[in-house]
Amino acid sequence: MAHDSTRVYQHGTLALLVPGLFTGTQSVHDLLQHGDFGIGTAHGLAGELIVLDGQAYLVAGTGDVRPVKTTETVPFATVHFQDAALTSQTISGITKMALEQQLLNQAPLKNLFFAVKITGQFKKMHTRAVEAQVEPYPNLTAATRVQPEFTADMVEGTLVGYYAPALYQGAAVAGYHVHFLNTAHDFGGHVLDYEVADAQLTVQPFETFEQHFPNQNAAFLETDFDLHAVNADIEEAEH
Amino acid sequence: MAHDSTRVYQHGTLALLVPGLFTGTQSVHDLLQHGDFGIGTAHGLAGELIVLDGQAYLVAGTGDVRPVKTTETVPFATVHFQDAALTSQTISGITKMALEQQLLNQAPLKNLFFAVKITGQFKKMHTRAVEAQVEPYPNLTAATRVQPEFTADMVEGTLVGYYAPALYQGAAVAGYHVHFLNTAHDFGGHVLDYEVADAQLTVQPFETFEQHFPNQNAAFLETDFDLHAVNADIEEAEH
Repeated sequence: MAHDSTRVYQHGTLALLVPGLFTGTQSVHDLLQHGDFGIGTAHGLAGELIVLDGQAYLVAGTGDVRPVKTTETVPFATVHFQDAALTSQTISGITKMALEQQLLNQAPLKNLFFAVKITGQFKKMHTRAVEAQVEPYPNLTAATRVQPEFTADMVEGTLVGYYAPALYQGAAVAGYHVHFLNTAHDFGGHVLDYEVADAQLTVQPFETFEQHFPNQNAAFLETDFDLHAVNADIEEAEH
Repeated sequence: MAHDSTRVYQHGTLALLVPGLFTGTQSVHDLLQHGDFGIGTAHGLAGELIVLDGQAYLVAGTGDVRPVKTTETVPFATVHFQDAALTSQTISGITKMALEQQLLNQAPLKNLFFAVKITGQFKKMHTRAVEAQVEPYPNLTAATRVQPEFTADMVEGTLVGYYAPALYQGAAVAGYHVHFLNTAHDFGGHVLDYEVADAQLTVQPFETFEQHFPNQNAAFLETDFDLHAVNADIEEAEH
């Protein structure tokens, strides 16, 4: 079957991380059936996951980067097939805030899910990575209270991530959520800020948001999610 | 391709109805590629849609029921392929409230989407149907302020609908949302209450919620959704 680039696929929900459901519930092998680019986290919240060209990498809280085996599992991840027909645009000298706002101003994308991919030179890149948790898992707020941050100047690499409409806050991260990995594969993480030096940008809007649930996981099925707390905690942990 | 009964498909969002986006944005033909049972509304909010065995019917605000042509369009509808391997259970003498609570108590389904289908004799059935709106469309609250209600005793027919987890309020209707059509095809609508006399029940949990957006519709793309208003209005209009 030809890859469907009109949809974005998500396993798990951001909401399930909030009370501490960090157990991996889908193999990376299965995840990669649904996309060749994407982001997420790993079993035990063991770092920031990024999928580039069908290979998953994990940036640990130590800052170390390693390839992820397809037998490893994830509690939450989002992937898509990059549309090969998409034309990229050259961007330079622009910050995260300016670019993200510009994308929403240029085209009416605010009510759709879309992917952002930026490949090239970044003048500045500021990331962070969550530290691996051990069972019994704390909740997301406790797990992310201390998060090592990393910065690099004039770094070459790829940024990948998503914009989700406000309506999907809790299922996904509303607004932008992007990760980065450098070309040398030794620096990356959850992106806090950046400034593009010279890079190629693609923006890929989706027709369909495919939400897959960990429907075999008893803890997920039985948890009473407090949605007001979920929203407050996502704001604290993800922004 | 074999039909995938592990997923529920939704075109549009409940949230888009709230400000009055009642224009049909998907043909019934296209909708039926994704399921043979389901519910929704029609272009112009012209009634309560129910899909049974691959045929769509519309219960108008007058109470009249008619088959829907596959060229007609819908702004919002949810469908699934009924799992042929599912075993039904016999139920009798149970009310809507008791049955719905019992389903959630029996199995940990609260965090999944699932379909409910009940076919048989209902001792009482209480429905309503929204009246068709004309452009310029009012918002959902205004459109649903007056809704004709219908009741029938000892009526045979089929009830179809969905449970959605609270997290998806706004995208879908959180909790239960079910429609009914009698066997004679002259009575039905959005179900307010019922009491089962003797019927067959199937409950079909889904692994995947497939959210399809009207991504070619300018009004949808450009609307600023007020999510606090959306939640309040859904409560008023759908319950």
